[in-house]
Parts: sequence; structure tokens; C-alpha cells
Amino acid sequence: MLVEGKQFRAIWVKKGDEKVVQIIDQRHLPHRFVIEDLSTLEEAETAIKEMHVRGAPLIGATAGYGMYLAALQAPKNNFDEFIQQAGAKLKASRPTAVNLAFAVEKQLQAIKKGSSPEEKIAIAFKTASEITENEVENGRKIGQHGLKIIEAIAKKKKGKTVNIMTHCNAGWLATVDYGTATAPIYAAFEKGIKIHVWVSETRPWNQGAKLTAWEMQEQGVPYTVIADNAAGHLMQHGLVDMVIVGADRATRTGDAANKIGTYLKAVAAKDNNVPFYVALPSSTFDWKMRNGIKEIPIEERGSEEVKYIQGLCNGEIKKVLLTPEKSKAVNYAFDVTPARLITSLITERGVCNANEKSILALFPEKK
Amino acid sequence: MLVEGKQFRAIWVKKGDEKVVQIIDQRHLPHRFVIEDLSTLEEAETAIKEMHVRGAPLIGATAGYGMYLAALQAPKNNFDEFIQQAGAKLKASRPTAVNLAFAVEKQLQAIKKGSSPEEKIAIAFKTASEITENEVENGRKIGQHGLKIIEAIAKKKKGKTVNIMTHCNAGWLATVDYGTATAPIYAAFEKGIKIHVWVSETRPWNQGAKLTAWEMQEQGVPYTVIADNAAGHLMQHGLVDMVIVGADRATRTGDAANKIGTYLKAVAAKDNNVPFYVALPSSTFDWKMRNGIKEIPIEERGSEEVKYIQGLCNGEIKKVLLTPEKSKAVNYAFDVTPARLITSLITERGVCNANEKSILALFPEKK
Repeated sequence: MLVEGKQFRAIWVKKGDEKVVQIIDQRHLPHRFVIEDLSTLEEAETAIKEMHVRGAPLIGATAGYGMYLAALQAPKNNFDEFIQQAGAKLKASRPTAVNLAFAVEKQLQAIKKGSSPEEKIAIAFKTASEITENEVENGRKIGQHGLKIIEAIAKKKKGKTVNIMTHCNAGWLATVDYGTATAPIYAAFEKGIKIHVWVSETRPWNQGAKLTAWEMQEQGVPYTVIADNAAGHLMQHGLVDMVIVGADRATRTGDAANKIGTYLKAVAAKDNNVPFYVALPSSTFDWKMRNGIKEIPIEERGSEEVKYIQGLCNGEIKKVLLTPEKSKAVNYAFDVTPARLITSLITERGVCNANEKSILALFPEKK
Repeated sequence: MLVEGKQFRAIWVKKGDEKVVQIIDQRHLPHRFVIEDLSTLEEAETAIKEMHVRGAPLIGATAGYGMYLAALQAPKNNFDEFIQQAGAKLKASRPTAVNLAFAVEKQLQAIKKGSSPEEKIAIAFKTASEITENEVENGRKIGQHGLKIIEAIAKKKKGKTVNIMTHCNAGWLATVDYGTATAPIYAAFEKGIKIHVWVSETRPWNQGAKLTAWEMQEQGVPYTVIADNAAGHLMQHGLVDMVIVGADRATRTGDAANKIGTYLKAVAAKDNNVPFYVALPSSTFDWKMRNGIKEIPIEERGSEEVKYIQGLCNGEIKKVLLTPEKSKAVNYAFDVTPARLITSLITERGVCNANEKSILALFPEKK
């Protein structure tokens, strides 16, 4: 997608040096556009853990390349054990996104098949590329399926602007390219449908205000930032035609974990008859799980992410304290939206209801 | 209530100088405790408009004293017209809180009865004191009525900690003393009931993180700050026994306007069978209104309050930019929680259901 008019992805292999992977260090957005080189497993691990990259599909892609970087580092006499340990480390770097474990497992299975370290490195590279291209392709397809939903609303509104609310950043910055929740938005915009996006700032990390707003700005899509608290008011007053969010993990029954605050939007959408969509690639499903609220582990991050916030002050990025210095604070990163509040899921294979039967009709191999 | 161990109110007449009213300039909390002198109508107006003071009852008390300061300033040959204009100015300073108009009207009616400027000034002083003492007394009574609700939950939990969630600041900083939503909390704490308060930060102005957290800290009540987005997750996991909030305006049918985001908490509370209480003095009712969502005017404030946030950085209060510089943002200050989502209203006359019949049973003179 566009950055200052040029096409970018959120992760790529460095031109002219296949041993280096490059990412956008998203901690500096929207104020600075910083590209970071990842040359080691540890750098990939830090990039995931400290949220230089975030978003379930991008975490998956970064973990995929992290395994490739580990293969480059692995001592020849202890290659397999090193790779196993690398996988365990990467898996532990963040707990909620299932794509992370999915990518690591995929790499472990693939690398095993190589007969020499050199071959294993080549396999790891190929697998990382596949994981990444797969996420790009998923985003493109989700965009096409979701586009139909937006087109239907636009038709019903007789060409009046379609107001779409999103939460957090399930954009191309979260998924390599296109995004999940944003893919239908970009597809509709490209098709010339009149849209406007309500970008919910998404405290405490403000991925909406920082990343989604920046994406929309760079792409030229009309948008307005709101405090998360304003979502219900807008819905009560008919200012939201649909909500579309991403997911970090979904159960086979259609419950979806996503950025903290998603559930509040879903329950308000239900109360106001606003359709609520979750856009997710199949890599986000945890096929073993049936009850999202009971089973999906919810990451609890440091309280300083609630107590402090970072922004631009006189050209410098500064962190300011928001609470009394001694305040306790808790910081749950995700919540779970139960399937009953979700109008439909938008996957790369099509749109389905948020229940096991409908999901398995699209993914019969998971029966 | 306590500030560094000493008793304070949120507004008072300066000791030794009855022509000066003092307030806590709340914009500097929790980082600095600043007392501001108000000596003119214009200073009172600015204090309300620019949120040195906020909270419906405190806005009312400040408007009451603002009218007194206006009476002190009024030219003797044009006293009545000056007072009329002062009332109009104060009324226009913020649109949502009904207490503001209530206090101004009360002053206009009272001052009219004086036969000389001197007498009118004395009446204005007395009326401002009455408005203020009335809010203090309302808070105290709301505390006693709400205490019974907390006691009942504590009994049911067999002495385990009662987890109370609040939103924004409906504390003593919003109401002169005790608070509305916090009055039952302080009463329970004083009685030795084990309580813990979830303080929702309340974007965009962060009155929760800044003011309620500071109040709890100074009073010694156990509390934890959360991002507004975390409210639903906590309820889903049984970590909230009750929600209690204040109101800025309520209809005779029990709809309640309160700080933006209150509705999201109410709808999530309903979805999780968590009781949701609105604590409000009768001065907050707008007896003419029957439909909160359609009738209560919702203030839209400047977008820079969403785009920028203020906090402490190396000992200095700094404002930082959170969004891309060119972002559009909207800033609705309140939303309306429909009566159907409210378990009970807690007023100075007792607890009632959020419907006209039950409200009028407590306030039969409004039939």
C-alpha cells in the first residue's frame, strides 16, 4: 500500500541482501517512518515482543522470517536443536495471536524435511516467503468478499457515504499488505464507492490513532479519529453503517479475540442494529477451541502502557505520565467477542455466519 | 475530602476575603495541586468553559458563585441588566449540564427580590452558598443511600472485596464534596467494607485517570486504572460487582446523559448481568425532557482534545500529538444511557428505578 505515494509492504527481504529482513518499526508511526533491519532471531523476537511489528498475520510472517534468520545463525553441528529452541522462543514472544504458533510450526515441519543445513536454510526462506505471500493473498481475497457487503450497503443508501467503523489496526501494517478489516475498505475506495472511516483511537496503545489513521491518510481514504468512548454515541445517532474489525484468534464456533475494546463495540452495535463484521484469514482460527471467553489466553501487558502515552511534542517523540505516579493500572491487550454478537465472518474463502456449522461449510477439511 | 491529609472542598469562599471565590484548577491534577482565585464573572465563565472546574454539580456551584461575582461587579445604575447578561453568559458557557441553568435561574429569581444593589449582592452570596451547601448535602445523602447497595453486595460476597467500576469523575472534585458516584464508595470505605475501584481513564479528557485516581489515592481507597476499552473484558470475567456513574442531565423518564463512553459500560453491564447505577442529585434532572437520546443536547468540543493529550514529562506538563498531524477528529463530550440499561438511580431522596413512575414517587412535586 502507499507511503508517500510509493508502494510498501509491512515486511520484506532486503533488496540485494537476502540475509536481512526489513520491517517498518511501527512504534514511531505516525510521526516518523522508520525501516528496521532484522538480521538475527533475537532481533525478530524483540521486534515481536516489543511491538515494532504487531497484528496477528504480520506477527506470523515475522515469526516465519525469524525462523529463517535462526536457520542462518544455527551452528552446523547443533542445527536441529538450535532451530527447536528458536521456535520455542518465538512462540513465547506473544501469547494471544495464533498465527505466531502456526508460522513456527509450519517452519519446524518444513525445515525437518531438509537433509543438510544449507537445504534447511533454503527451505526456511521459501517457507517464510510462502507464509508472507499467503497472508497477502488472504488479505486480497478478504477485500473482495468484504467489498460485496459494502457495495450492498452503498446501494441501500443510494450512493450516500457509507460510514464504516473500525477498531485498532487490522490494516496492511498488521498483515503485510491490504489488511484484514481494512481490505474491504481499500477495495471499496478503489472501486469509487463513497466511504468514510471512523478510526477508533484504541487505547492504551493507540494503534487506531497512530496506525490506521496514518494508513488512511497515506491512501487518501476519508477518515475521522474518535475516542474509543464515542463509538456508542455514533451508533445511537445512525452515524455508523457497519463495524469491521480484525481478530487475533477465533474459535471454531466463531468467538473472536481482538484488541481490547472490540467487545464493547460489538455489544453496542447489537444494541443499535449495526452489522458487526470480523475479517480474518483462516490462519487466525484456533480449530481446537470452542469457547473463546474461557479458552483464549489474554495477554496482560505492563501497566506503564496505560499510565504513560507517547506522542509528538515540539518535533520530538515524548512519553508523558497520565495518572498519579503511584497508580496501579492493569493492561489486558485483548478481549473476546462472543459469536452471538457477530453478524458475519469475512474469510479468504468467503463470508459465513459466526457458528461452527457455517464456518465448517467454508473449511470442510477442519471437520 | 482529603488532599495530603487535609480537608478540602472543590469550591469555597476565600478565608478573610469574601469577594474572592477559590477553586482547585483541575487541569493540573494529578500532577500539581493548584488553587485559583475567581474575582470576576469572566474568570468564573472561563473556569467553567475551559474546564478548570467540571462536573455538573460543581459547574452549578461555580455558576452560582459566578452570579455573585457578577453582582459585585454590576454597575449600580445598570445592575439588573448586567445581572441578566451575566446569567445568559454563564448559561452559554457549557451546554449539557442542566445544573448550570438551574443555578443561574435560581440566582436570577433570588436576586430579583432584593430592593437595592447591596441587598441583591447579599442575596446572591447567600444563594450561591445555599446552592453549594445543597450539593454537599445531596452528595452526603446519595452516599448513605448508595452505601446500602454496596453493603448488600458485600454481604452476598461474604466479606470478599466488592469491585466497583466507575467512569469519568463524579467525585468530590465534580460536586464540591463527597461526589455523586463516589459518595457511596467513600461511605463504604469509611464503614470498613472491603472495596476496590476500577477507575476507567475516560478519554479524551482522562478525568478518570487524572481526577478519580487522584481522589482515591488521596483518600486511601484501593483502586486500579484501566483503559476504557478494558471495561467489558473485566465484566465478562466476573471482576466487576457493580458499576456506578454520575450524570450531567437526566430525563423524567430516567435516561441519563453522562461522560462519553458511559453508554458502552451500561450496555456491557447489561450483557453481563452487572448492576448499573446512576447517582445524581435532583438538580441534574431536566423535568421537561422525556427522551434523552433525542432531546439532551450533546456538547461537541474541539478536535484537538482528541488529537493531543497532556501529561507529565520530566517534571513538566507537556502536550503530545497522538494522531497524524492532519487527522480530522470529532469530540462528543457526552452520551446518553437509555433508562432500560440502568438498574437504579441513586438520588438524595433515595433509590428508585429508572422510569417516570418510580422517579415521580420520590419527587411527587414534579408530577
